[in-house]
Amino acid sequence: MNVFAVSGIPEVEPGDDIAALVEERVDLEPGDVLLVASTIVSKAEGRTATLDEFPTSPRAEEIAGRLSEISGEEKDPRFAQAVLEESTELVMEAPFLLTATRFGHIGVNAGIDRSNTGDADLLLLPKRPSESAARIRAGLSLDVPVVVTDTCGRPFRHGQRGVAIGWDGTPASRDWRGERDRDGHELEVTVESVVDELASAANLVSGEGDDGLPVVVVRDWEFGDHGGSDNLFRSVEGDFVRQALRGWEFARD
Amino acid sequence: MNVFAVSGIPEVEPGDDIAALVEERVDLEPGDVLLVASTIVSKAEGRTATLDEFPTSPRAEEIAGRLSEISGEEKDPRFAQAVLEESTELVMEAPFLLTATRFGHIGVNAGIDRSNTGDADLLLLPKRPSESAARIRAGLSLDVPVVVTDTCGRPFRHGQRGVAIGWDGTPASRDWRGERDRDGHELEVTVESVVDELASAANLVSGEGDDGLPVVVVRDWEFGDHGGSDNLFRSVEGDFVRQALRGWEFARD
Ligand SMILES: Nc1nc2c(ncn2[C@@H]2O[C@H](COP(=O)(O)OP(=O)(O)O)[C@@H](O)[C@H]2O)c(=O)[nH]1
Ligand SMILES: Nc1nc2c(ncn2[C@@H]2O[C@H](COP(=O)(O)OP(=O)(O)O)[C@@H](O)[C@H]2O)c(=O)[nH]1
Ligand SMILES: [Mn+2]
Ligand SMILES: [Mn+2]
Ligand SMILES: [Mn+2]
Ligand SMILES: [Mn+2]
Repeated sequence: MNVFAVSGIPEVEPGDDIAALVEERVDLEPGDVLLVASTIVSKAEGRTATLDEFPTSPRAEEIAGRLSEISGEEKDPRFAQAVLEESTELVMEAPFLLTATRFGHIGVNAGIDRSNTGDADLLLLPKRPSESAARIRAGLSLDVPVVVTDTCGRPFRHGQRGVAIGWDGTPASRDWRGERDRDGHELEVTVESVVDELASAANLVSGEGDDGLPVVVVRDWEFGDHGGSDNLFRSVEGDFVRQALRGWEFARD
Repeated sequence: MNVFAVSGIPEVEPGDDIAALVEERVDLEPGDVLLVASTIVSKAEGRTATLDEFPTSPRAEEIAGRLSEISGEEKDPRFAQAVLEESTELVMEAPFLLTATRFGHIGVNAGIDRSNTGDADLLLLPKRPSESAARIRAGLSLDVPVVVTDTCGRPFRHGQRGVAIGWDGTPASRDWRGERDRDGHELEVTVESVVDELASAANLVSGEGDDGLPVVVVRDWEFGDHGGSDNLFRSVEGDFVRQALRGWEFARD
């Protein structure tokens, strides 16, 4: 499996055609997977914003006030408002904002970025990243799967890693159910989220800084002869951690 | 970045020298990273077990009884006992057992496997996977970083993915703090867990089944000129999800 970044992608502007930007710089081959950082998908889709676009509600002021108090730093209620508007549920309100986005992804601050945003204050996630992936895929002259990625943190482990937030042309996961291990037993680890694993691999070469490498190609990797599943984001009914967080209150000690 | 599995590794037995098994089959190059599935590290370290080795405590019987009731399937209290003995804390007791292992990793059933276990009922995780990684590394004729991997699930997202549970010869994470984005702003996403991203990349070629590919080489990837951090497992004080789960009780509706 070969994982390489596409070099020479310019600063992406609203309306840019990502498929064209990519294919002008790399010859895709059958079987490739194309990974695109959400940051440039958002830029192309005009998902930049300024804080002034978010006049604050009392709820946003309450949240920002509490976060300011906890952190000892002034938090902008307009940013809290932006997060609220991007979210369908607040999973945690303090000591940071963890929310569910409209498309099901759970992330800190609804995945709104304040780095690599170009001239804007904020970069919102694409509205429907799997549709973004489908649009990019449809624009390619060679049909390969497209995965839109982001970087985010997680419970239990420090640090962030690349994840998929949208995908098209591939199932999200390999479903190993019904398959056998080396000893003939049926498998217990049943569903392998390959789009997340691909996004993590891509992040190793994209990085988080000023490298300017938002597009990665994975070549010579095979999904293989497995079942597929497109279920990536847990709903609250099946997510005990989310349920537990609903009943939990941050308390400083 | 090139990611490939080492072919021809036999069924691993207690006492096997993993470094030798690898170097007989692949010429490592400077800059490579070697990823080894915990399953063969455990086999080599004799971490197989039978259920009879775990005479049950009342606590294990209580846990297994509750899990049997919830699932409608008979759960073996000896298995619950094995999980208890591998763990320092029960993070969740129902509807499944989520625990912290002695070395800090949080996983379902303390990461005990019941597939790819060879002749044994159970395969326990290595006792101290970073020490296992160091031992494998010390046995290599060329000094490269070694990462011990496992597959596990996570909150918020369906499915499992490869993660690092031990590492040696590399920091766990790239620390981007103090570095700049494309627009000159200081970075917010500060710590990138590269050992987890490497483990995810490796899992794409190892799979979960009978492929027999427990060893993966990552070639032509660079950690780069970044700070490093070895902090991978959150402690309970810094883990709000773990705190929330402490106060939570599963209730069937
Ligand atoms: N060429 C180019 N690279 C960009 C642009 N925006 C971000 N990047 C690069 O894309 C990669 C990922 O950036 P990051 O901010 O982590 O994106 P995210 O993970 O999608 O939030 C880094 O290498 C950035 O330098 C852009 O407009 N053009
Ligand atoms: N050659 C060889 N492959 C093994 C052995 N045990 C497991 N595997 C393979 O190692 C890979 C990972 O196995 P898995 O059970 O998912 O390990 P885990 O992720 O560390 O729990 C799969 O390709 C298995 O077929 C072994 O003893 N010898
Ligand atoms: Mn982002
Ligand atoms: Mn990123
Ligand atoms: Mn395992
Ligand atoms: Mn596995």
